[in-house]
Amino acid sequence: MTETSSASSADGQLWAVVPAGGAGTRLWPLSRAGSPKFLHDLTGSGRTLLQATLDRLEPLVGERVLVVTGVAHQDAVRRQLHALPGDRVVAEPSPRDSMAAIGLAAAMVERTDPDALIGSFAADHVIADPEAFRACVEEAAEVARTGLLVTIGIEPARPSTGFGYIHLGERLPGFPTACAVEEFVEKPDSARARAYVDSGEYRWNAGMFVARAGVLLDLLAVEHPDLASGLRAIAADPSRLEEIWPGLTKIAIDHAVAEPAAAAGKVAVVPGGFGWEDIGDFAALADLLPDAAPGLKVLGDADVVLASGSTGLVVPGSGRTVAVLGLDDVVVVDTGDALLVTTTAHAQDVKSIVEALKSSGRSALT
Amino acid sequence: MTETSSASSADGQLWAVVPAGGAGTRLWPLSRAGSPKFLHDLTGSGRTLLQATLDRLEPLVGERVLVVTGVAHQDAVRRQLHALPGDRVVAEPSPRDSMAAIGLAAAMVERTDPDALIGSFAADHVIADPEAFRACVEEAAEVARTGLLVTIGIEPARPSTGFGYIHLGERLPGFPTACAVEEFVEKPDSARARAYVDSGEYRWNAGMFVARAGVLLDLLAVEHPDLASGLRAIAADPSRLEEIWPGLTKIAIDHAVAEPAAAAGKVAVVPGGFGWEDIGDFAALADLLPDAAPGLKVLGDADVVLASGSTGLVVPGSGRTVAVLGLDDVVVVDTGDALLVTTTAHAQDVKSIVEALKSSGRSALT
Repeated sequence: MTETSSASSADGQLWAVVPAGGAGTRLWPLSRAGSPKFLHDLTGSGRTLLQATLDRLEPLVGERVLVVTGVAHQDAVRRQLHALPGDRVVAEPSPRDSMAAIGLAAAMVERTDPDALIGSFAADHVIADPEAFRACVEEAAEVARTGLLVTIGIEPARPSTGFGYIHLGERLPGFPTACAVEEFVEKPDSARARAYVDSGEYRWNAGMFVARAGVLLDLLAVEHPDLASGLRAIAADPSRLEEIWPGLTKIAIDHAVAEPAAAAGKVAVVPGGFGWEDIGDFAALADLLPDAAPGLKVLGDADVVLASGSTGLVVPGSGRTVAVLGLDDVVVVDTGDALLVTTTAHAQDVKSIVEALKSSGRSALT
Repeated sequence: MTETSSASSADGQLWAVVPAGGAGTRLWPLSRAGSPKFLHDLTGSGRTLLQATLDRLEPLVGERVLVVTGVAHQDAVRRQLHALPGDRVVAEPSPRDSMAAIGLAAAMVERTDPDALIGSFAADHVIADPEAFRACVEEAAEVARTGLLVTIGIEPARPSTGFGYIHLGERLPGFPTACAVEEFVEKPDSARARAYVDSGEYRWNAGMFVARAGVLLDLLAVEHPDLASGLRAIAADPSRLEEIWPGLTKIAIDHAVAEPAAAAGKVAVVPGGFGWEDIGDFAALADLLPDAAPGLKVLGDADVVLASGSTGLVVPGSGRTVAVLGLDDVVVVDTGDALLVTTTAHAQDVKSIVEALKSSGRSALT
């Protein structure tokens, strides 16, 4: 891997690391193990979530991007990002959680430019205001140049129990908005989520981290020295990937690095308000889309949807005409080989369908 | 047309006339103009409604059957009834309502055997107890030999507002159950329907009429002489069908013959309790099917249906897997080019979808 654009500066340039994983089982049958949600256009923009993620990052990093994905998806990722040099797509031989994925990319960047910064941005997030997002990332990069691990703390849109939270600490002098991180807290119950949001002192943790590549790996080396050295060994000699990878510790970046570093006062947060959504389920997807008719959202060709006295979400994905009559908050997802009918209130339970399909020997549909 | 089985007796043999028409728009997208409900297996028996109708009549009439259908459906009807001689399927050049359809068949039978009886039995009814049905028809035929027009009055299963009713009169001496018909009454409102059923004096009018062919046509000739003579002229010279048919009066057999004849005291009724259903909509279809899971009916391959916390009806008609999650009384009808999602409470409104498709230029789907 070589950095072909402007030579790396002593300040260290920013690289984007884009983990592209996760099955998105709550979005079945749209999202499948073989075709996960980042490969789909879920916003009707004409770009898949992965493509939109790279579009959003391009003004910040140009081609300094590493997409880390599973071997099963590397061809699809390369097809969608055909303008990107081939060595910018890194294939994990097997899933080893977010620390290994982001850490491997960090180690590769570290070898290219020891002063470089990396920022991790998942391939399946939706951001309403890309300019505000980029301003946040730029501030995070400035803070990260001081040697801190920096996260971006999303302004909570609601008291969600589906995300971890970041407790804001003291303001950091010399930066427009950055604060210290008091602590990372796990997904709360609903009373606690309400209290967090009401206090104004908490932000959602969307897994966005910015740091010097070396800082991230050195922090990792404190708690998990074998994992850090394994990742650096692969970056030094990529032919050892298959040998080393299966033995790496499976751990999320939050537990491996962010929480211990926060406890040690080494993490900052830049609060961000740019309309972030991770489209965790069809209720979230419905919230995101504009009305095709009052209360009715359509992802796809609205001309083949015939709805009467109905609200909710219709995804006409097979070309067939979909008629919906007299149902409120319904979710109808029509694909070539499978059809889902449920309600937004049951959106979180959709993963149970995927489990039932697997346990009944129909994994081909998952 | 020739009668090849036992020669016609002086008593007159019974012929079955099976009108096979009606689009069944409330059963869209299962039933289409091009593939109406009588061509479908709606009971999961392995036989279409048309085939089951002829199976049920076979012990009574053997091959003495005339199926009257539209030109558009004659090939499909012949394929489904491939064992029936070809001249037993009569194609109407255009729809001219039930009197013309049944009357033409009556005129054809009259020429073959002037003493013959005809009984009209629609191609899209479901009957739970065929033996009880046949016993009724046999009694109706005995009564019809006396020169009366005889109808079969269905024991009401509920105070339906979807059918006309028959008001029972005095018992007819010499027959096990037959009565005079006091009058035919139109589809009632719900209070009146309740009163009819509570009185025990009313039966559903399912359009089943048994009479000597000549009696039926002579009764018709009283009120509509041109229609009766037109039908007899076609039977005498089938080459005149295209010439005469378009000018025939469009009228239902009830209005043309049954109501005036009842007023004249010339109609009898044999009450029947044999589990009759006309499957007017998906709610009726759901009532008819056995449970695939508690409260859930499946018409088709239940193995491709994955339902959780749901009741209602699923028709998996495209081979695709259908997953339904957390919906009560839902109706999901999946076909190769169209999908319907509604509830049993909206079953009667399904025809509005068909109207909307037509008015938006998508008649191909209707």
